[in-house]
Amino acid sequence: MTYSQRRYNLKAHIGGSGLDAMLVTDLVNVRYLSGFTGSNGALLVFADDRAPVLATDGRYRTQAAEQAPDLEVAIERAVGRYLAGWAADADVGKLGFESNAVTVDGFDALTCAVEERGGATELVRAAGTVEALREVKDAGEVALLRLACEAADAALTDLMARGGLRAGRSEREVSRELDSLMLDHGADAVSFETIVAAGPNSAIPHHRPTDAVLEDGDFVKIDFGALVAGYHSDMTRTFVLGKAGKAAAWQLEIYQLVAEAQRAGREALKPGAGLRDVDAAARRLIADAGYGEQFGHGLGHGVGLEIHEAPGIGATSAGTLLAGSVVTVEPGVYLPGRGGVRIEDTLVVAGENPELLTRFPKELAIL
Amino acid sequence: MTYSQRRYNLKAHIGGSGLDAMLVTDLVNVRYLSGFTGSNGALLVFADDRAPVLATDGRYRTQAAEQAPDLEVAIERAVGRYLAGWAADADVGKLGFESNAVTVDGFDALTCAVEERGGATELVRAAGTVEALREVKDAGEVALLRLACEAADAALTDLMARGGLRAGRSEREVSRELDSLMLDHGADAVSFETIVAAGPNSAIPHHRPTDAVLEDGDFVKIDFGALVAGYHSDMTRTFVLGKAGKAAAWQLEIYQLVAEAQRAGREALKPGAGLRDVDAAARRLIADAGYGEQFGHGLGHGVGLEIHEAPGIGATSAGTLLAGSVVTVEPGVYLPGRGGVRIEDTLVVAGENPELLTRFPKELAIL
Repeated sequence: MTYSQRRYNLKAHIGGSGLDAMLVTDLVNVRYLSGFTGSNGALLVFADDRAPVLATDGRYRTQAAEQAPDLEVAIERAVGRYLAGWAADADVGKLGFESNAVTVDGFDALTCAVEERGGATELVRAAGTVEALREVKDAGEVALLRLACEAADAALTDLMARGGLRAGRSEREVSRELDSLMLDHGADAVSFETIVAAGPNSAIPHHRPTDAVLEDGDFVKIDFGALVAGYHSDMTRTFVLGKAGKAAAWQLEIYQLVAEAQRAGREALKPGAGLRDVDAAARRLIADAGYGEQFGHGLGHGVGLEIHEAPGIGATSAGTLLAGSVVTVEPGVYLPGRGGVRIEDTLVVAGENPELLTRFPKELAIL
Repeated sequence: MTYSQRRYNLKAHIGGSGLDAMLVTDLVNVRYLSGFTGSNGALLVFADDRAPVLATDGRYRTQAAEQAPDLEVAIERAVGRYLAGWAADADVGKLGFESNAVTVDGFDALTCAVEERGGATELVRAAGTVEALREVKDAGEVALLRLACEAADAALTDLMARGGLRAGRSEREVSRELDSLMLDHGADAVSFETIVAAGPNSAIPHHRPTDAVLEDGDFVKIDFGALVAGYHSDMTRTFVLGKAGKAAAWQLEIYQLVAEAQRAGREALKPGAGLRDVDAAARRLIADAGYGEQFGHGLGHGVGLEIHEAPGIGATSAGTLLAGSVVTVEPGVYLPGRGGVRIEDTLVVAGENPELLTRFPKELAIL
């Protein structure tokens, strides 16, 4: 889908909400609707046929012209305030703004700009409008998410092939090598700070890599992702560094449990499914096995231009899954002081079966 | 300074502003005042002797107890709203909030929490209160900034010693090696995406590394920093890959000009100096040489827990430099299509002479 088509969808949406125009100031949303990636920018989109306006400051004059050649570009540092004034000058009656992103001081500035022009323009809360459009990915976005997931898959495959995951190395060494391999395999950057958690640290859901050394008998949990053209991948795999080539009974038990729960979660990913029902499909298995208290986070989340975006898939999530959304499924069981397992994939919700983007095997590997 | 001393300073400040308590929701400010580094947290500080309260959610129960052992910790996901309610329950009359950080929707939630309890608590805009305290660094902060700058210095020295900067390598290769060397030399992470800009790309102030290859005759501009315990370093150096060991006359001219302007900027760094006068001290030299239009950004900015923080040092900055603030001085001249030079240091403002934290040499190196 072109940026122009995305703006067309927004236009239809804001018209349907009774707004005359929408002021987009969240930078991820600006990027989604225009292609512009600078650190200062805002976009004004009208419900009628008037041309949208992108505002940014002088540092980005050339970049804006290159990235958004189809848009009128206004050069101004206070981009939100400037476009609110522009809307008032254009006799916009109801101007939607992103109340989930605009600060109280920022809102004062928008109000001021409108009032300086007589105040006939009303600022209307329109939280999450573009985020809702972003929930369903178009073919171009899925293609980029696929590339991001492939880079991550290839990096982990390469790490294993090099014997990079072995007793004696530190969490930090492994995470640095994996990060480097993601770049080698086509990532522009990493999606987020890579988690490598060994032994008892694997029981901490969001552990940051330390100098702790991998030891025989450890669970090693790796949660990581690649960034490609702004799109994030997200995958977790858990391995066992076996003692004499074997995993302990408790390790096998929770690994199989999490793997089954993760499969159940993936199988529940169908367009129209209730988000909390998807969560429940996986959570039920873990709770029935007596580990409900050891799975303290939601089952998954949307992934795209942000590493966490709509929809959230948790026990209290409202709403249903949409075809074309891209989400993670990532149950875990964490036993404090001993170790934990999480298995996470990124998938496209589509028809009867979701498309798996993170294809690295999930069978327990005992190293 | 201990976290408790920082909160004491805030207490004095809010008491002086007629507030009864301050709700801190900006995560960097929460970290500054408590040591807590989780991704969800807020802090309530009273003007009187009542104990402050840190709120975070269940994921961070253990971490909050470890990082902020001297604070009462409340576990709640909607941390701002919860602490606003706490303040109302504690009969706070005027409750300051960070209007530069709280969104419009977030403010609605705070208002709601207060109104549910009778509405006797008034929410008062208190933008930038903690940021103003953060402008003057304490000895512990300067020590961490020094370590961050040392890691960056050591990494660049190492890169040069390895011959890492040479014709035939790509910008991306150089930036990856430098990033890796910063980690080797003690950085927890990089401060920001490293800029390596070769040839004509060096004329783009914030160029992102590409597969462009370094060639003989190029300027190579490197802007990078190391992160240590949350504190950022920031340094830019520009080199020439000489043709037959020589720089071109135009390269020597603008390098010397920027170096002189940078020295003038450093020499103007004195407690009490007007911020715009510091900017002017460097800018004047560049403008007098006829390159005023080719220096299109401010002279510098504060550095600390954020890579850009107060004070801004530019042509329109109000206010004066404070002893103990840590700032960059980074003039540049950029000739589109040809190349550009920026030279940047991080320094502590202190007495007659600032302390230079980024000590890598600034004499033109022709490689």
